[in-house]
Amino acid sequence: MHKIAFIGLGNMGAPMALNLLKAGFALRVFDLSAAPLQRLAEAGAEIAERPADAVADADAVISMLPASAHVQRLYLGADGVLAAVPAGALLIDCSTIAAATAREVAAAAAARGLTMIDAPVSGGTAGAAAGTLTFIVGGTAEAFERARPLLGAMGRNLFHAGGNGAGQVAKICNNMLLGIQMIGTIEALQLGVASGVDVTVLSDIMARSSGRNWTLEVYNPWPGVMDGAPAARGYSGGFGSDLMLKDLGLAAEAAAAVQAPIALGALARELYRRHSAAGHGALDFSSLREVPAG
Amino acid sequence: MHKIAFIGLGNMGAPMALNLLKAGFALRVFDLSAAPLQRLAEAGAEIAERPADAVADADAVISMLPASAHVQRLYLGADGVLAAVPAGALLIDCSTIAAATAREVAAAAAARGLTMIDAPVSGGTAGAAAGTLTFIVGGTAEAFERARPLLGAMGRNLFHAGGNGAGQVAKICNNMLLGIQMIGTIEALQLGVASGVDVTVLSDIMARSSGRNWTLEVYNPWPGVMDGAPAARGYSGGFGSDLMLKDLGLAAEAAAAVQAPIALGALARELYRRHSAAGHGALDFSSLREVPAG
Amino acid sequence: MHKIAFIGLGNMGAPMALNLLKAGFALRVFDLSAAPLQRLAEAGAEIAERPADAVADADAVISMLPASAHVQRLYLGADGVLAAVPAGALLIDCSTIAAATAREVAAAAAARGLTMIDAPVSGGTAGAAAGTLTFIVGGTAEAFERARPLLGAMGRNLFHAGGNGAGQVAKICNNMLLGIQMIGTIEALQLGVASGVDVTVLSDIMARSSGRNWTLEVYNPWPGVMDGAPAARGYSGGFGSDLMLKDLGLAAEAAAAVQAPIALGALARELYRRHSAAGHGALDFSSLREVPAG
Amino acid sequence: MHKIAFIGLGNMGAPMALNLLKAGFALRVFDLSAAPLQRLAEAGAEIAERPADAVADADAVISMLPASAHVQRLYLGADGVLAAVPAGALLIDCSTIAAATAREVAAAAAARGLTMIDAPVSGGTAGAAAGTLTFIVGGTAEAFERARPLLGAMGRNLFHAGGNGAGQVAKICNNMLLGIQMIGTIEALQLGVASGVDVTVLSDIMARSSGRNWTLEVYNPWPGVMDGAPAARGYSGGFGSDLMLKDLGLAAEAAAAVQAPIALGALARELYRRHSAAGHGALDFSSLREVPAG
Repeated sequence: MHKIAFIGLGNMGAPMALNLLKAGFALRVFDLSAAPLQRLAEAGAEIAERPADAVADADAVISMLPASAHVQRLYLGADGVLAAVPAGALLIDCSTIAAATAREVAAAAAARGLTMIDAPVSGGTAGAAAGTLTFIVGGTAEAFERARPLLGAMGRNLFHAGGNGAGQVAKICNNMLLGIQMIGTIEALQLGVASGVDVTVLSDIMARSSGRNWTLEVYNPWPGVMDGAPAARGYSGGFGSDLMLKDLGLAAEAAAAVQAPIALGALARELYRRHSAAGHGALDFSSLREVPAG
Repeated sequence: MHKIAFIGLGNMGAPMALNLLKAGFALRVFDLSAAPLQRLAEAGAEIAERPADAVADADAVISMLPASAHVQRLYLGADGVLAAVPAGALLIDCSTIAAATAREVAAAAAARGLTMIDAPVSGGTAGAAAGTLTFIVGGTAEAFERARPLLGAMGRNLFHAGGNGAGQVAKICNNMLLGIQMIGTIEALQLGVASGVDVTVLSDIMARSSGRNWTLEVYNPWPGVMDGAPAARGYSGGFGSDLMLKDLGLAAEAAAAVQAPIALGALARELYRRHSAAGHGALDFSSLREVPAG
Repeated sequence: MHKIAFIGLGNMGAPMALNLLKAGFALRVFDLSAAPLQRLAEAGAEIAERPADAVADADAVISMLPASAHVQRLYLGADGVLAAVPAGALLIDCSTIAAATAREVAAAAAARGLTMIDAPVSGGTAGAAAGTLTFIVGGTAEAFERARPLLGAMGRNLFHAGGNGAGQVAKICNNMLLGIQMIGTIEALQLGVASGVDVTVLSDIMARSSGRNWTLEVYNPWPGVMDGAPAARGYSGGFGSDLMLKDLGLAAEAAAAVQAPIALGALARELYRRHSAAGHGALDFSSLREVPAG
Repeated sequence: MHKIAFIGLGNMGAPMALNLLKAGFALRVFDLSAAPLQRLAEAGAEIAERPADAVADADAVISMLPASAHVQRLYLGADGVLAAVPAGALLIDCSTIAAATAREVAAAAAARGLTMIDAPVSGGTAGAAAGTLTFIVGGTAEAFERARPLLGAMGRNLFHAGGNGAGQVAKICNNMLLGIQMIGTIEALQLGVASGVDVTVLSDIMARSSGRNWTLEVYNPWPGVMDGAPAARGYSGGFGSDLMLKDLGLAAEAAAAVQAPIALGALARELYRRHSAAGHGALDFSSLREVPAG
């Protein structure tokens, strides 16, 4: 698996592609913007004019795109990947999209004899740059093993969640729970502080009790409690509120498809929507309490 | 501090008192029911006819009662503890009650020259029996240190949350967050399972990702995932849904007092209220999903 | 029933008392503030130094106080109304308080052979001044009839909701529903306007369809749709958001007492709490959408 | 406008088409099922084999289909309406679908010189049979006037909400508000009844106070209060909970498109989802309280 086509060189895709180059893979890349193409070319990648050119003789294709519609167009469109890629190539979509779309595209690939996995990531731009991303993969066990060297060059934790689409499902479940826990943690800290308890003492007690969660352990939303967290730098960097809002929208879409009840998930989405509409969408998602009185 | 008055020998109080006896403390006990009194007497405690008799020459008083009104009556009532206890005794209320009541009773104690702490517990009846409870204490640092030998005979983790009432506040913040996380975890698992992902795989992925929380680590709500959890034994034992409902009510009361926003906490309360009204109040609080379709 | 004691001359009580004077009743009044006493005296009322003096030879007592604790103190306290009022007097509490308190005070009155009703009002200060209030009464049918001439001098619509406390229950149910409908109306209008539909056209369609409610008929929350509504005057006057928040708190208290599910009611309370904490508590309750993005 | 093509003869479409026949219009009809075709043929309609045949020489086309995808396929598909209908025909889609889809299809029609309106209905199967439906129309004022004779043969209230898509937006806003008000009314009645107030008395008081809404006026959800309502016949007939759930899903979709906050609307959707998943989806939407304890 030496020749890799990489499509989508945004804030996440570009550093991921750079890590593949560092690991010795030969890359042919495509993006609509000139700047990241230039940066990748300087690092040794070959530039393609069209997606079809990028994948023409690839052993594997990796894509990192904003949303479901982009993935559908890239793979299924006339002149798309499925029409142009050689038989035997492994297709890896790292975008965070609807599970239904992931299954649809994988089925179309299978109909052409191609193997595809969905491999959405978590870890943010910092993880992408450091090569410490988490990949949550949907597809066969064989495909997961085939993808391991490539994913391992870009990330640290590789999870196999199940068949096609399962990677998207598991990521969206995780992020919905994360959003709920973040707001729950903020509510608990606000209640405690307003009632006169020191925020660091309270955070420490809950982190060592049944209220413990990832937020309290490594991402405390209150300024002054944890040095490395976004709260310590004005909620810059980190995982933007708008991205959390997008993931909660995907969770709502998935829940509607299977009629799963998500009362807290739906309310979390509304609270992030208000936060975003109030102009805080670019701030880290731990900034929710910065809304006046909320 | 050899002579201890222990008042309130319910499901929690009785095993706590037994652990104090085992640790060598002399106990005089009071309860309205004959059965636990008999049990404590057989273990070596002295039985008092009235609370005032129990505390008459005590070095410390420990109380474990159901709700705010009982604590007010016990300490402040005519013939109550404050009127009967010797100067210099340490007062320890382990009940989970409103922070405002804890402060009110502690202030009345202080007005009589007595030192009091609020020391609500977590860990349930199993923790009470095993002597592994967590105590979250409100009061002065000196009082916390004076109480340490007694609390240490009944529990393992001792937290000092701040001044009087802070123990109640911190416990209620923790338990509100716990309730939110439990429902959030259930929603995420239901969504994942309904979408075709294996519940154990999904639980494992989230427990090792940003969705991690205490629930996923030691108290998975789904039958078949975790051997020791209440879900493995039909949701018997554990922490009853009605107790979670009580704590979410205390959180709502505390939030109203300081006008703190608790959108998810308020919705969690409503979901547990429905669960309880549907007849599941005695089941462990991880049973929420057992409601038809929810 | 010529001699009336009126206790509590706030924004509501003072104009109510003035309407009784206009209707020819003899009033003895009490309040803690000098200003309204002076105003009532100029209108012909007699001023009492203490509540006990006001009620000493009264045929009926009317009270209008801020909250449950004030009502308890006024009627049940040492030197309170129950201890001082003549046998045979009719007691009318117009305060909006917890139903449980209304029942408790009425039971204490009955134990002394006195007849009492709870008669909370709606209609605001404008209705109080114009004598067009709505009274929702809890008590016996006989007591309701006895009170009719007095209530009729202060209001227009008199409802008999049931036994003692039923007036409070019915009012709080109505106001919880009102709060829910106001927010629902605001959400529907925001969604329509953001989607490009004219707000007046949309309001008109819904007011004539199954979305119809009192809000759309006489109290449209959107500026420019309805001339007389608070939205037309910067949300001044009307029914303050803080008062709605108080009533939603009473509804939550009542729901907790009987374990009634109020999922939307609980969420409405949280949204008004945020609105209030954001500094909008004094604005009319139709101003909720003025929160940034919400 | 004598020759009408009517496509979609389900529970709503069939009685609507029958009313057009009664009013003297000549109908050519299409459906996938034989039974309603037979029924319409007996009433005087001509049967078409394909949609393209139905519309071939029509003056107007009316469609009544389940969801957005069906409407897209019917109008935009190869061999679809737009390809087959004569220039000058008026297109009327009565389906309840996404506003975005309504706009997309209308734009495609306009590109071919055709005039189209969206005209979703309310009033249910009873209204369809009686010819008393409400139509909420999106399109130009001229198109609205052209459609009036046709719509007037099927319904009583005709609203012009604005340009294309506005009919869908207004209907979905109305129905979201209706769903919120229904649950709010149920919560208020449950709280009142559990607190000891008679349900008919409480309903009457609220219907004459600021809690007034359409539900309390003509569709009381409590059995025994209102003879004609679905609650009086075991929640059969009326507007099914699954249809309300569908409309709340469309509202969520619309809100996501414009980032409008719908906190109560989102929670209402979750409550109907639970109701539906508990097996009550076919019952009238006023049956929500039949969920155990909710």
